[in-house]
Amino acid sequence: MARPRTFDEEAILDRAILLFWRKGYEATAMSDLVGELGLGRSSIYAAFGDKHQLFVRALTRYLDRQDALLATALDADGPALGQLRDLLGRLLAADAACGPAGCFSVNSIAELLPHDGEVARLAQRSLSLAEEAFTRQLERAARDGELSEAITPHSGAQLLLTLVQGVQIIRKTDPDPARATACLDSAFALLAGKATPLEPVGADLGPLDAGRAG
Amino acid sequence: MARPRTFDEEAILDRAILLFWRKGYEATAMSDLVGELGLGRSSIYAAFGDKHQLFVRALTRYLDRQDALLATALDADGPALGQLRDLLGRLLAADAACGPAGCFSVNSIAELLPHDGEVARLAQRSLSLAEEAFTRQLERAARDGELSEAITPHSGAQLLLTLVQGVQIIRKTDPDPARATACLDSAFALLAGKATPLEPVGADLGPLDAGRAG
Repeated sequence: MARPRTFDEEAILDRAILLFWRKGYEATAMSDLVGELGLGRSSIYAAFGDKHQLFVRALTRYLDRQDALLATALDADGPALGQLRDLLGRLLAADAACGPAGCFSVNSIAELLPHDGEVARLAQRSLSLAEEAFTRQLERAARDGELSEAITPHSGAQLLLTLVQGVQIIRKTDPDPARATACLDSAFALLAGKATPLEPVGADLGPLDAGRAG
Repeated sequence: MARPRTFDEEAILDRAILLFWRKGYEATAMSDLVGELGLGRSSIYAAFGDKHQLFVRALTRYLDRQDALLATALDADGPALGQLRDLLGRLLAADAACGPAGCFSVNSIAELLPHDGEVARLAQRSLSLAEEAFTRQLERAARDGELSEAITPHSGAQLLLTLVQGVQIIRKTDPDPARATACLDSAFALLAGKATPLEPVGADLGPLDAGRAG
């Protein structure tokens, strides 16, 4: 019978997220994990497996949070484009609140794909969920006459999804949040086909809790 | 007096580009470099310095090629948006011709920023050059009545630059070139403010030589 664990597995995973996120997969040594997680090497192996298995658990947890937000944040009525703009702003703000390391998912794709099949499948699944959610939202925008006729909802969804990955790269070279904000504003102005900024609709929504394990 | 070198430094750097690009900085061991470059450890140190110095030389060479293209490809007359669209397509095609590893610059930003100051400065410089070139081109598009009034040339340039970084991430999860093409087409349709695809203008231009060291 396994000994009962005396630590909070989810809190440990949150610390692993932040460490892998900040340093990357390859640069994180087992000794870094021992130091950061406050667990011995054998406890880490017993609870999470090897470094790669722990990384996959950490990335899964990070992506699950984003997926959960997508599944709920766009479910309301209200202006479709404005709601989507708010969601993206909140996702970016949540990552920025965790430091200047960009996005854990984007960093992992850049470092480990295409050769890491397990990380590839995780990333692909999460990107597909986002693409579907964005598409549904832009279909609603089109029905409501909010979307420019220069683009289809599906193309717009792929464009936005791609743009957000790019914002996460650019932010690592220029952390000024005004730049990311301006980029999203430009994209939504083009999607709306007019220069008028969108009304904010999510003033009651705080930033995401992205699992800061302070 | 230094012994004359008996190898082609530029060809060696091209091999280093491909190795670092494919594996990433951290995952590339000195033994990988010895195997791939066909040089002994001491020759590598003597010619290029340590692993980080060699990486910086390789990335500099990769970025210099892109910068050189930007400095010339947009210098002609002709439809400003179509010319810019062609340039971006050629940049993406050149990277794809080197394999499924995405973009060496984007991968390096994701893996090494913000903590690697030298790589950060290289990346920032190259992104700034691109942003300036894109802005000048979109200013011309605006003067020619090609640019949607929903966006300024500078905002459009930042948007495109960000989008291209994102395309390089998405391509690592989905290598189908049609997806990258569709994303650029969508962006240019929005920049033009109409769904009509742009006429190709650069049929006489082959893909970039991105330094395949076959």
